[in-house]
Amino acid sequence: MAANCIFCKIIKGDIPSMKLFESEKTLAFLDINPLSYGHALIIPKHHGAKLHEIPPEHLTELLPVASRIASALGCENYNILQNNGRLAHQEVDHVHFHVIPKPNETEGLGIGWPQQKGDMERLKGLLEEVRSKI
Amino acid sequence: MAANCIFCKIIKGDIPSMKLFESEKTLAFLDINPLSYGHALIIPKHHGAKLHEIPPEHLTELLPVASRIASALGCENYNILQNNGRLAHQEVDHVHFHVIPKPNETEGLGIGWPQQKGDMERLKGLLEEVRSKI
Repeated sequence: MAANCIFCKIIKGDIPSMKLFESEKTLAFLDINPLSYGHALIIPKHHGAKLHEIPPEHLTELLPVASRIASALGCENYNILQNNGRLAHQEVDHVHFHVIPKPNETEGLGIGWPQQKGDMERLKGLLEEVRSKI
Repeated sequence: MAANCIFCKIIKGDIPSMKLFESEKTLAFLDINPLSYGHALIIPKHHGAKLHEIPPEHLTELLPVASRIASALGCENYNILQNNGRLAHQEVDHVHFHVIPKPNETEGLGIGWPQQKGDMERLKGLLEEVRSKI
C-alpha cells in the first residue's frame, strides 16, 4: 500500500469504485472516464508503479480476469493496454490494465503504429543481450 | 495449432524467429518490424484469435514473461498492448502481447485517448449487467 496512491485507496475502500471483480490479489472496476462504454481497469492489489516492479505471483491472475471481463462485455473488438511511465501515457503510478472496447473508429483506444523494417544485424545483437538477462 | 497461422508456424519452428524465451505454454520473440528498438511479442502456444478464447491456464505465464523481458530491455517507459479484432488493430489472428519500449515521442506506440466523462447512471446499469456475467 502507498499512502498517496488513488488505486491503493480504492483497494482499501477509502474511495468508492464500481467493482466488477475482487479476489485476494486482484481488483477490477469500471473506469469512470471511459474511452468507450465498458472501459474497465484490472489492478494487482500489490502496489508498484511499473509492470517489472510487481512480483510474478501478483501478475498471474490479471489476464484471466481481463478475459472474463471481455467475455462479459461481449465486445467483438477491444484492446488490452498497460502503460509504464509518463512518456508511455501512464497517469496513475499503480500498475493497471485497461480493457477498452473498440466499437467504432472514433471511440475506444486510438493507435499510432510507426512501424519500421528492422535492422536484422542490430536485432541479432539485441537478441543475445536480452536473452542473457532474462 | 492452426494450419495457416504464422504464429503457429513460428511455434512449430517452420518459420524462424528471434526467440527470447520459450516454455511449455509460452513463446517470446523479437518483432522484426518494430515500433521501437526492443519491441517484443509474447504469445501463448495455445491457438486462439482473441484473449477471451484462450483458456485461463494458458494466460497465467504471459505477464510474468512480459515483466522479465521489460526488465531485461532496461527501458524506463514502455507499453504492453494486446489487440483483439481488425477494428482494434489486430493483424495476426493468434493472441499476442506486445512489449513496446517508448524511448521518445516519435518511436514506440502512438496513443489516442478520446476520454469522456462517464454517465454514472448508465455505468451503474452496466455494472450490474457485467457483474452478473463474470
